[in-house]
Amino acid sequence: MNIEILDTTLRDGIQGEGISFSVQDRLSVVRALDELGIPWIEAGNPGSNPKDTEFFSLAASLKLEQAKLCAFGATRKPGIKSADDPQIKGLLEAGTEAVSIFGKSWDFHVKEVLRVSVEENLAMIAETIEYLRAEGRMVFFDAEHFFDGWKANPSYALAALKTAFKAGADRIVLCDTNGGSFPEEIVAGISAVKTALGSGVERTVPFLGIHSHDDAGLAIAASIAAVEAGCSHVQGTLAGFGERCGNTCLAALIPSLQIKQGYSCLPGEKLERITELTRLVAEVANVPLPSSMPYVGYSAFSHKGGMHSDGVLKASRSFEHIDPVLVGNERNLLMSEVGGRSAIADRARKIDSAITRDHPAIRAVAKKLKAMEAAGWAFEGADASFELLLRRELGLHKALFTILAYRVMSEHPTGQSIACSHAWVKVLVDGQDEIAAAEGNGPVHALDVALRRALQRFYPSLEQIRLTDYKVRVIDGGAATAAKVRVLIESSGGHHTWTTVGVSDDIIDASRTALVDSIEYKLITG
Amino acid sequence: MNIEILDTTLRDGIQGEGISFSVQDRLSVVRALDELGIPWIEAGNPGSNPKDTEFFSLAASLKLEQAKLCAFGATRKPGIKSADDPQIKGLLEAGTEAVSIFGKSWDFHVKEVLRVSVEENLAMIAETIEYLRAEGRMVFFDAEHFFDGWKANPSYALAALKTAFKAGADRIVLCDTNGGSFPEEIVAGISAVKTALGSGVERTVPFLGIHSHDDAGLAIAASIAAVEAGCSHVQGTLAGFGERCGNTCLAALIPSLQIKQGYSCLPGEKLERITELTRLVAEVANVPLPSSMPYVGYSAFSHKGGMHSDGVLKASRSFEHIDPVLVGNERNLLMSEVGGRSAIADRARKIDSAITRDHPAIRAVAKKLKAMEAAGWAFEGADASFELLLRRELGLHKALFTILAYRVMSEHPTGQSIACSHAWVKVLVDGQDEIAAAEGNGPVHALDVALRRALQRFYPSLEQIRLTDYKVRVIDGGAATAAKVRVLIESSGGHHTWTTVGVSDDIIDASRTALVDSIEYKLITG
Repeated sequence: MNIEILDTTLRDGIQGEGISFSVQDRLSVVRALDELGIPWIEAGNPGSNPKDTEFFSLAASLKLEQAKLCAFGATRKPGIKSADDPQIKGLLEAGTEAVSIFGKSWDFHVKEVLRVSVEENLAMIAETIEYLRAEGRMVFFDAEHFFDGWKANPSYALAALKTAFKAGADRIVLCDTNGGSFPEEIVAGISAVKTALGSGVERTVPFLGIHSHDDAGLAIAASIAAVEAGCSHVQGTLAGFGERCGNTCLAALIPSLQIKQGYSCLPGEKLERITELTRLVAEVANVPLPSSMPYVGYSAFSHKGGMHSDGVLKASRSFEHIDPVLVGNERNLLMSEVGGRSAIADRARKIDSAITRDHPAIRAVAKKLKAMEAAGWAFEGADASFELLLRRELGLHKALFTILAYRVMSEHPTGQSIACSHAWVKVLVDGQDEIAAAEGNGPVHALDVALRRALQRFYPSLEQIRLTDYKVRVIDGGAATAAKVRVLIESSGGHHTWTTVGVSDDIIDASRTALVDSIEYKLITG
Repeated sequence: MNIEILDTTLRDGIQGEGISFSVQDRLSVVRALDELGIPWIEAGNPGSNPKDTEFFSLAASLKLEQAKLCAFGATRKPGIKSADDPQIKGLLEAGTEAVSIFGKSWDFHVKEVLRVSVEENLAMIAETIEYLRAEGRMVFFDAEHFFDGWKANPSYALAALKTAFKAGADRIVLCDTNGGSFPEEIVAGISAVKTALGSGVERTVPFLGIHSHDDAGLAIAASIAAVEAGCSHVQGTLAGFGERCGNTCLAALIPSLQIKQGYSCLPGEKLERITELTRLVAEVANVPLPSSMPYVGYSAFSHKGGMHSDGVLKASRSFEHIDPVLVGNERNLLMSEVGGRSAIADRARKIDSAITRDHPAIRAVAKKLKAMEAAGWAFEGADASFELLLRRELGLHKALFTILAYRVMSEHPTGQSIACSHAWVKVLVDGQDEIAAAEGNGPVHALDVALRRALQRFYPSLEQIRLTDYKVRVIDGGAATAAKVRVLIESSGGHHTWTTVGVSDDIIDASRTALVDSIEYKLITG
């Protein structure tokens, strides 16, 4: 059976704390969702925001594979005609094939928040849908707070749905707006809707939809239960963005529906791209995904315990509920003190296939790792640095250059002719030295550019490296020591991206360590 | 009905990527869990790690209110007696009233991972439990992979449980080790167990337990379903830490069980401390909690959309599924471009109660906020900076000092007598200038110390401030501009903690902005 997915990252998603998108970002998100095969993208609220109207006209020129955009708005204002409501005009101006409108189905909200009569609310629902249908739009009716409304006043909540149904809505979407409903309440509510609408729920297929929020940690379970109970349209946001605790995370839901329950949500082989594209959307939003996110998180198939690492190396299903390849994710045997020598040896075999867990270098690395972790290092997110550590212990890597000296300065005010931060670096390569200077956006950037400039005479390929992300965290290496910082540097050389780590009392020194690793890694991997 | 909670943050939790605890950290976690009223704390694996044995002897001297510690281990090794197994000896040496042991209930694991006969595995289960019982311990038997085992070979999985039952286990804990089971499978498995054990499941109350993982985003739903199906012992980790996608997050589960379903999990008024203590555990682990975490996350009751902010100000239940006070969390009207003037005015009334949303300063702030957010600022996590912005716009705050000039330098190698980073700053206060220098762990620390030193002549109270956290993130202010950095600085002055923000092309300049706000905030709040 097909399940129709609507992604609302660009509408409900941006209600999440810390989530905002520029117009270019929004176009990137639309492209990513289209590539994944999501059929409907709710992309903004043109009636209430002129920037959104502009976005819809830009988006119209995108060559999408199959996704369709949908504009979002509300039922008309009380006491006026739909045709006279500027918000409704804005919705039509977006020029989308379908529009979503939300209306109230909880009488408490009608009286206390909207502050109109319950009759007027029904009229608003009916007339808005009829008007939009007459203007040639498909109409998705979002019954806001349906489940809370149905629990408080079932007959009014169902009357609101029947009104939307009679007015010709193409989808009726049942919203658990406050996110507090349990799956069994969702199932009971859907059953009441099916009884109330009778055979109407088959007027179009899909027809009934579900829209959940994760305030009780139950959004995924509620959406699965709703599908089992007869909803064939599911709303959510790919990365789970959304107000408060977020919307239903589609990246965590779709694999369960498709792999475990046999529903079809995405066309063809698209599911294998869900990890990559979810991370891309998070990247565009500049928000780190929780690494523990089901299916697509960086840790979703990470094994740290020695026994678990051992187990998955013997048989992957021993500690993995699905094959990570199905969702384009990968297994990750974590290099940490509890990871054990099997995991280290497995990693080392990618460098030299003859290495076993009893190799003296593996014991040495395990011991060193323990000491470095105690001092605040973490290699779990810095695989390039870990590979260099391994190669050094295996005797397969000698330093390709030495920094003889550097000086980094930031000052204010500065002359017109120099940036706030500047640096010089002197390096030694094969007995020859070279010095170079650079200015930059901040001392680390200046140091990075100066260092690469000094080395380029010897290693021209370094011109391709770019520093793509830079993260700093204050850590505490233990009770008796002073605060330290851990720096993670992500570098890119075209299609390839790698991360290195440095730890020091001094942020510049920690950055230097990570920069040196980044350059050494580039030089050995080409 | 009472539900017995077991927290395994210090055992299964540390299997999570990026989670590690020093001995002092572990004691802090035990104290926090005890304060919350958690009855059982699974605190380590003494048989396989000598550090854990040491920890249990230290922990024995803690004066706990009510929590009891539990040591964790495995069934004995194949082919030897329990009394001769060093791992079992270690378990006993921990000296805890109860021990948890895990054993295999999935024949595939017995054959492929453990590589013993299915009969020997049953003998290992029986003899280990009998031995530990004879040594006077309560025994919690964790049936590892029970649900996968039951699906693959129900009679063997149930035979393993019956063996544990006959051997005298005090709890039988059904584990969904790989985290891929659906709630209905959990319910069906529990029903099969109840049939197999007959009236045995009432031998002790509590007796049956559930242990879930979140690999399909269903751990909370599975645990709730298990409780409804008859489990009265629930395992998880307070903050959801754990291997891969994490264990059942108790902070997200307990409020649902207690507030919505009427079970009793924590004594007295303890639920009101769950937000504070969950954040404390995350703080000790030095791991940021996802802000969207149900019930206890920073965003769990955050409202950004103008209509939602308006709604909760009219009636809180309009957009909140529970009163945040019940879990010790708080409502948060986000200061952002989509937040609208109601939220800004609500915040401003804490400074001047006469302010309405139509005050010209509120309009000015709303406009300024929009422009600053477009340039990469984010005030959502930097309330002190937002308060200063408000006060400046309301005409209630004039700068208390000016930085005339500064120079920050980091160099390598350095002389013996000076640290790698050092700074001087010249300030102007009321027409008088002052210059001071400092060295520090990195340029920002040096700048911070030098700045406060220069100002202390005028403002002696600054001596109390400490910089407690420092975060940097590379942001992209838009397509045409260069990369910027956003710096968040957390400062503490005794019991009070506040966060400020700075944005610039240059990390030092962004840090300076945040440092200045931090000091100004301290000076106005005393």
